[in-house]
Amino acid sequence: MEYRFARRMAEVRASEIRELLKLTQHPGVISFAGGLPAPEFFPLDAMQSVAHDVLERHGQEALQYSTTEGHPPLRQAIAGRLNATSGTALTWQDVIITTGSQQGLDLSGKLFLDEGDAVLCESPTYIGAISAFKVFRPRWVEVPTDDEGMVTEALEERLAGTDRPRLIYVVPDFQNPSGRTWSLERRRGLLAAAARHGVPVLEDSPYRELRFEGDSIPSLKALDTEGIVVSLGTFSKIFCPGLRVGWLAAPKPLLERYVILKQGADLHTATLAQMEAAAYMERFDLDGAIARIRAAYLSRRDAMVDALDRHMPAGCRFTRPSGGLFLWGELPKGVNARDLLARCLKRDVAFVPGGAFFPSGGHENTLRLNYSNMPEDRIEEGVSRLAAALREMLAEMGAVPAEDAVPASVGP
Amino acid sequence: MEYRFARRMAEVRASEIRELLKLTQHPGVISFAGGLPAPEFFPLDAMQSVAHDVLERHGQEALQYSTTEGHPPLRQAIAGRLNATSGTALTWQDVIITTGSQQGLDLSGKLFLDEGDAVLCESPTYIGAISAFKVFRPRWVEVPTDDEGMVTEALEERLAGTDRPRLIYVVPDFQNPSGRTWSLERRRGLLAAAARHGVPVLEDSPYRELRFEGDSIPSLKALDTEGIVVSLGTFSKIFCPGLRVGWLAAPKPLLERYVILKQGADLHTATLAQMEAAAYMERFDLDGAIARIRAAYLSRRDAMVDALDRHMPAGCRFTRPSGGLFLWGELPKGVNARDLLARCLKRDVAFVPGGAFFPSGGHENTLRLNYSNMPEDRIEEGVSRLAAALREMLAEMGAVPAEDAVPASVGP
Repeated sequence: MEYRFARRMAEVRASEIRELLKLTQHPGVISFAGGLPAPEFFPLDAMQSVAHDVLERHGQEALQYSTTEGHPPLRQAIAGRLNATSGTALTWQDVIITTGSQQGLDLSGKLFLDEGDAVLCESPTYIGAISAFKVFRPRWVEVPTDDEGMVTEALEERLAGTDRPRLIYVVPDFQNPSGRTWSLERRRGLLAAAARHGVPVLEDSPYRELRFEGDSIPSLKALDTEGIVVSLGTFSKIFCPGLRVGWLAAPKPLLERYVILKQGADLHTATLAQMEAAAYMERFDLDGAIARIRAAYLSRRDAMVDALDRHMPAGCRFTRPSGGLFLWGELPKGVNARDLLARCLKRDVAFVPGGAFFPSGGHENTLRLNYSNMPEDRIEEGVSRLAAALREMLAEMGAVPAEDAVPASVGP
Repeated sequence: MEYRFARRMAEVRASEIRELLKLTQHPGVISFAGGLPAPEFFPLDAMQSVAHDVLERHGQEALQYSTTEGHPPLRQAIAGRLNATSGTALTWQDVIITTGSQQGLDLSGKLFLDEGDAVLCESPTYIGAISAFKVFRPRWVEVPTDDEGMVTEALEERLAGTDRPRLIYVVPDFQNPSGRTWSLERRRGLLAAAARHGVPVLEDSPYRELRFEGDSIPSLKALDTEGIVVSLGTFSKIFCPGLRVGWLAAPKPLLERYVILKQGADLHTATLAQMEAAAYMERFDLDGAIARIRAAYLSRRDAMVDALDRHMPAGCRFTRPSGGLFLWGELPKGVNARDLLARCLKRDVAFVPGGAFFPSGGHENTLRLNYSNMPEDRIEEGVSRLAAALREMLAEMGAVPAEDAVPASVGP
């Protein structure tokens, strides 16, 4: 039979990140490609304990259908935690549970986007948001972004000059893919511009609690006085991604609609997983667990920054993120990171070429490196292989000598 | 701020079923409204055991991100089970895991439906499919349906006479809401007509294994020789809905696209829940557990049919389903089931007015009754209250004497 699909399917194709994640499943590969947390920090004993308790005390409830909004004690615990860590003043009714924060993206597309509407985003932006919104066929408008966040004047200009701007999508803390964190001033500038133009802001914040150094900056949600911010969060990076439990905080008129959309999408998020997460937060020390993760990722970031510094040839530039899972690199002009990846795979090392993170294309000399999922010695070995592949490539291009010893500059 | 939503939101509103489910949370209410399985049959001890084993043996894997397609051993177990119970010949690669079968509906809408495309459905049809598809703004075409399924000639006529028919959505076994099961002849008729017109068939099959009497009829997926059937299933009615684990079987060119759409929607279904379901199927007797559920629901169906027979006034007609969770009723002409519900709620009894299951409206004298979630004595009491409310309403309408003793006819 000749299959006929909705028009949106013309643009919906297997993503690069997905194909790459498949490669990382071979145990021999040193993968800087995924965004996987370090599984050795999953609290297995605590999970055994809460899984047992939840089934013992509330088994029938935990295995039954539940409300679309989510398990009230979990909503309460999340609201409390956000208030403590992000400066918000949320009640439990301001928060609903989603099936990972990825679902928050899908529901946001449904709520705000008609075909041809404009989504303003950082440049680069999160590839999973591109996938989630693609089915609603928006136009992407990349806003010039530097190490402080979106440039406010450029955002103002785009908001004024873009037809049907309907959503501003940002990852203000330790952004995926760039590792950047927005300054307070840029956060305020974004909110003022968004309010002036009546465009809602979607704040995607999976990495916020993974800060290694420096002071935490209030979340957009905390700074929002106009009711224009929808904030997404998840346990995936601070607890266990395999539970698929995330959350969404939004003003009431939006939240009511998100709930209806979520009901159509999957009825509700797994009751058992929600109750386990709530019991874990009640009985165990999530702060302590996050502190251990942070310490490990800091050490891995240092290992990667150090290895890049020592191994990579001149003309490369890498960020030095103050938190999160990712580091962003620029290769010498003319080097295509997709070609470099092909060479790297032969050496059993993987990363994500940066071009995939720019909805309007270009930037093929960039790449994203994940440092959370590999121990320090593997990071050292992987970066050394990456550098060797790049030197080989540069030598063939006649660009620089293969044994060029000038170290890469590792910027802020 | 003045919020501006996507156009689809004009039609997306809180559903009746949802508001009603909220009412059923008061413990005093006898609810025939939801579609909840009986929680006393959830295998709590077995779940304790598999939860412990999965965390003990595969803890890091169970709490980590996993592939969008789902846990291979679970896909294998589901394919095997479908082949044994539905007459299919699936391999594990023909099946992907979804977040409940509700997600299969959302993904199908994304895959097949542009605004204004036609979805052909039974009359009445499942309210959750109406919610899921609504965001894609299709036209609904109700096909005349009797106790054997869609009338083949009427389907042919609608397929030929409808602009852009893009999907045929059916629940062939113990349909929600009507409790009807399609005959083999009508299944073959549907597939022939669909193939002739090149329109894919979405078979939603959550209740198939809950047959009380009579012989099982091959699923549409088993009868499909043209590669036009997508089949949805779930553990929600035969195991535990709180895990939110369902599945989708489809021809390869469709399945590949479903996977990409699912990745954008929620990355993957909870790893832990998938591994628990797989371990349960491997180590415990799912067939035996389903046999116990079937026996209980048969007894509850009998209790409800019997109570309706004794209590309801003349002029009502109810189905007598051979399986599943629901029974469908027609009240005397002129009785609005929404008004009846309002009266019933005062007597602490709830059901779903049938009008909500007809996308084109009308049929306000119909209702859906669930019998799976209440023990026999509560069913008796609830039906007695329902009958009293109806008699009171009829008396006020001047239709029949309130104490009319003629029993309702309880048809096939």
